[in-house]
Amino acid sequence: MKTATSLQQMQSSYIREILSAASDSNVISLAGGLPDQATFPIDLMQPTLIKLAEMPEVFQYEQTAGYAPLLTFLSGYFSLPENHDALVCTGSQQGLDLLARAYINPGDSIVMESPGYLGAMQVFGLVQANILTVSQTKNGPDLEALEHHFATQSPKLFYAVPDFHNPTGVCWSLETRKKVAALCLQYQVTLVEDAPYRELRFSGDTQPYVSQFCPDCSIVLRSFSKIASPGMRLGVVTGQSQFIQPMIKVKQGADLHTSVPMQVLLLGLLQHEGFAKHLARMRQLYQSRYEVLYTQLREQLPAGCTVSPVNGGMFVWVTLPACDPFALAAQMLAHGVAVVPSPVFYPANSDQIQPGLRLNFTNSTEEALIRAVSCLSQTLKAFLTV
Amino acid sequence: MKTATSLQQMQSSYIREILSAASDSNVISLAGGLPDQATFPIDLMQPTLIKLAEMPEVFQYEQTAGYAPLLTFLSGYFSLPENHDALVCTGSQQGLDLLARAYINPGDSIVMESPGYLGAMQVFGLVQANILTVSQTKNGPDLEALEHHFATQSPKLFYAVPDFHNPTGVCWSLETRKKVAALCLQYQVTLVEDAPYRELRFSGDTQPYVSQFCPDCSIVLRSFSKIASPGMRLGVVTGQSQFIQPMIKVKQGADLHTSVPMQVLLLGLLQHEGFAKHLARMRQLYQSRYEVLYTQLREQLPAGCTVSPVNGGMFVWVTLPACDPFALAAQMLAHGVAVVPSPVFYPANSDQIQPGLRLNFTNSTEEALIRAVSCLSQTLKAFLTV
Repeated sequence: MKTATSLQQMQSSYIREILSAASDSNVISLAGGLPDQATFPIDLMQPTLIKLAEMPEVFQYEQTAGYAPLLTFLSGYFSLPENHDALVCTGSQQGLDLLARAYINPGDSIVMESPGYLGAMQVFGLVQANILTVSQTKNGPDLEALEHHFATQSPKLFYAVPDFHNPTGVCWSLETRKKVAALCLQYQVTLVEDAPYRELRFSGDTQPYVSQFCPDCSIVLRSFSKIASPGMRLGVVTGQSQFIQPMIKVKQGADLHTSVPMQVLLLGLLQHEGFAKHLARMRQLYQSRYEVLYTQLREQLPAGCTVSPVNGGMFVWVTLPACDPFALAAQMLAHGVAVVPSPVFYPANSDQIQPGLRLNFTNSTEEALIRAVSCLSQTLKAFLTV
Repeated sequence: MKTATSLQQMQSSYIREILSAASDSNVISLAGGLPDQATFPIDLMQPTLIKLAEMPEVFQYEQTAGYAPLLTFLSGYFSLPENHDALVCTGSQQGLDLLARAYINPGDSIVMESPGYLGAMQVFGLVQANILTVSQTKNGPDLEALEHHFATQSPKLFYAVPDFHNPTGVCWSLETRKKVAALCLQYQVTLVEDAPYRELRFSGDTQPYVSQFCPDCSIVLRSFSKIASPGMRLGVVTGQSQFIQPMIKVKQGADLHTSVPMQVLLLGLLQHEGFAKHLARMRQLYQSRYEVLYTQLREQLPAGCTVSPVNGGMFVWVTLPACDPFALAAQMLAHGVAVVPSPVFYPANSDQIQPGLRLNFTNSTEEALIRAVSCLSQTLKAFLTV
């Protein structure tokens, strides 16, 4: 059976491939985007796991939008406006997929940051969107380029990760947030604010959601993968009711609803008195690891390479002088360290690829991070002088 | 934001709407397709629920195809051929959605039984397939019409529910199974065999899967919603590796993977020594309920209405003389009984709609079924003589 045309456009995920190579226990992997499984708050979930055995009703079919008590809780937890709805998804990745299916026709333009989230490029590729990009600066997207796209290409939406962006780690400034919201309102472009790393801030001041400045012109994707557990596959999409209803309609055909016992487990966790302490401990662990990685990189990276500090999230971004990042990543892997080369974070046809590497700091011990940077620096020095 | 063209074709689910009305506790609902929650084998899951608290690794990201120990188990459980793969999905509904997205271009023809599964029509509608239908007879699909479609329309696939079909309850004869497989092989049309009710047989001889007669020309969808729990959202798709791989690629973009703790829970259940006994008890319960419903219908239905016996599944199908089944269902609901009128099981543009009703017998007590038939018969008599 011949596959659909839409699938033929889809890039295979290099990250999945490198993750597979990196699962070798002799490899230090800075390639994935995995939280440390030692942080999973399973002790806080245990009371609910036991209670589930007494709750046959949550093993039954459920309404598509989600488990009602969880929806009610989330509405308060996120202080949703009256006219907004929530839809629980199988990870925020599904939220993005439903959104793309509900709104994007083949050829419709969308804008995203560049480099940008690979999973979003896959989703927009599947619906055959015309992907426009704006360069990521240290304060967020290039606003001039963004307005140019908005004014000349009438994109349907702007997909962005304003807090600790994947892959660059950039957190948008307050000024950028306000300006982007104003542009979205002015040109009537829906902002899709993806916030999976927002709760992973370990320094600096929390910034308001960008969508706070244009609530009725935005859809927000939130994930529980980084603060609870990714294996549970839970995320939530919120926005004006009229934005969410078509996504519920698509989800009904896509999988009817998301696992109810998992939603019950999440609700128990979010309501647990120990949840705030769990978050604090996790942030502290990730901050220590980040500081080790960043300090080592600053000390050891060869001339011409740069690394920017971050205030949270899971990644740092290393920029490199002109070179082939794929060849570099392959050499690194041969030396036992997995990293992700920058080109995978650009659309296939991009002519703006900057050489670089994405490094994850959440799932390796400090000792492993020290060894990884040492290997990276030595490999880089040899690689760049060839 | 304007919704996508594909969504504008999608019928809203009348069943969802009637289910919502039917959730009123004063209504006896024969409308849904719900298993009885009293049958959920939660006692058999309890040991795994407790063990989960000691398994942080299953709360981590997982490969897209599924939890490896479950995939290995299922491969043996279903005696899959060497060259076949399995993909765990968020319910078999998602398997069908991934299949449609991986293979169907807008305008591609597909064939399904008529009346047929509403969820399949939604999925094929979303990918803008050209839906062709074949009438369901008491032995399965009209073979002459099927061959005519195969020969003249080159459909990409034939979607079918050979065991206890939704909505008619029909179980295909052995002869029909062999003939359909032969036609699929002859015309190189992929058979999509959806088997959610197969394990719910309570009388008669088990028939071989249709795909057993054309294994490399078919994809099989299996659900754990009826034999374990629907709320867990677990199903599995199997077929030749080259058929399954593109679906895995789509699933990677759609939601990365299905909940791992739920997959662990399912594996524990399927391996539990009490699982066979659970199935036997459930079949027995559903048989008693079916027999009450069928006997009462035979005794009380007015002339011109027919009901066919079934050997399993969840539904019986009542055919009616010329009338408006929607108006009848509305009257029934006003009298406190929810049923699904036949037109919702036909494509929107169908000119072959036969008046009828789908009645579910798995989620009502015998006493409620007796009251429901009494109400149905009285309403019908009044309705048909107006």
